[in-house]
Amino acid sequence: MSEPYTLVLLRHGNSDWNQKNLFTGWVDVRLSDQGVAEAKRAGDLLVEAGIEADVLYTSVLTRAIQTANLALEVADRLWIPVKRSWRLNERHYGALQGKDKAQTLAEYGQEQFMTWRRSFDVPPPPIAGDDEYSQANDPRYVGIDGEVPATECLKDVIARMLPYWESDITVDLAAGKTVLVTAHGNSLRALVKHLDDISDDEISELNIPTGIPLVYTLDADFRPIGAGRYLDPEAAAAGAAAVAAQGKK
Amino acid sequence: MSEPYTLVLLRHGNSDWNQKNLFTGWVDVRLSDQGVAEAKRAGDLLVEAGIEADVLYTSVLTRAIQTANLALEVADRLWIPVKRSWRLNERHYGALQGKDKAQTLAEYGQEQFMTWRRSFDVPPPPIAGDDEYSQANDPRYVGIDGEVPATECLKDVIARMLPYWESDITVDLAAGKTVLVTAHGNSLRALVKHLDDISDDEISELNIPTGIPLVYTLDADFRPIGAGRYLDPEAAAAGAAAVAAQGKK
Repeated sequence: MSEPYTLVLLRHGNSDWNQKNLFTGWVDVRLSDQGVAEAKRAGDLLVEAGIEADVLYTSVLTRAIQTANLALEVADRLWIPVKRSWRLNERHYGALQGKDKAQTLAEYGQEQFMTWRRSFDVPPPPIAGDDEYSQANDPRYVGIDGEVPATECLKDVIARMLPYWESDITVDLAAGKTVLVTAHGNSLRALVKHLDDISDDEISELNIPTGIPLVYTLDADFRPIGAGRYLDPEAAAAGAAAVAAQGKK
Repeated sequence: MSEPYTLVLLRHGNSDWNQKNLFTGWVDVRLSDQGVAEAKRAGDLLVEAGIEADVLYTSVLTRAIQTANLALEVADRLWIPVKRSWRLNERHYGALQGKDKAQTLAEYGQEQFMTWRRSFDVPPPPIAGDDEYSQANDPRYVGIDGEVPATECLKDVIARMLPYWESDITVDLAAGKTVLVTAHGNSLRALVKHLDDISDDEISELNIPTGIPLVYTLDADFRPIGAGRYLDPEAAAAGAAAVAAQGKK
């Protein structure tokens, strides 16, 4: 096997906290019933497109792992090797974790709200280590390089995600494997920013819909050949618009 | 962390083919609804016992992977690292794969039937490479050491399972990790034979029930300290009796 390589990105489906309109970040919530259905449909879309993942990468957050398990069960490929890393986690939302999005918008106003949601390099205030929604003492992060973050901006996500892309994911791609990455809105925005060479300013406009596989064909240098393509472009456009409208509830 | 180490063995729950009373082996069938319920209960039993798996080992067969995923979802530990190997697969049942157990018993008689089910070193006749239930061309076995088996006896299972126990599983145990192995009746019989030093003759009497975690405490040489204990001993005894009675339908 050789290039072109195939990379499939999949954002987890709707979660319990998406439904409640709360900032989630590293809080380990589960898929909602809608999210379960989205994940299974993602599996159907992969089957229909004839894309067979050879290896799975996930974050260490349950909603991404559930999404992968459900999609791969539909696709009859639960048996592929799995690699998990906190480096694929959602952006840590700092002190906003567990807060209501609409209430935060009302309280702080549109400008501050959009800065926290979409600024490239301004993180929300850090979460206190003893906050019920802090992960400072979560056993799954024992032994990670450095400290468990207390907040992150997109720039921070890129800084911890890209080394893993280079050290691990591209190695499987180079071996000719079709790689499925099941992760989160912001860790996938970070990866798409890198792949599509999107500027720091323009990345704020990019919204990745939930539950719809985004397929890239990559050359020998792991650069995209053409644009990434969603396996259901219409649903993807509607989903991206819904993400952009979040908080305005 | 140091010894004693904790090892948890879990046989997958009831499958579609258990319900149909067919020989399964390496045929990749799924859990039945009963098997799904058993797997979730295994997760509850682990939680109640306060046992937190740090790493998961599974075969590459869907029913074992489903069992692990369901149990770990209940236990809120889907995020632990996962390692899969064909070396933990069920015994390959040769030409019996896909055959009805009761019909096979009626056709060949009790002695031949029990030889195929429980002989230590007599495998069933090999399956033809072009049989619909052969795995000779299954992509998940591309690249395994040697050839995809066409039949196996328990002795063969031990020969391919034990090297993996030594090369991989004991390494995680030695690092102080609580290891969960989710596998099959015969790959787990092979491991228990090794752990409990059961003779080739006596192993035929050992039946491992489905869906009930079997917990071993191991010393620095990975030898059991005391007997392995089922987390629900009553259900385990009933389950083992049901396995022993299989085929007599």
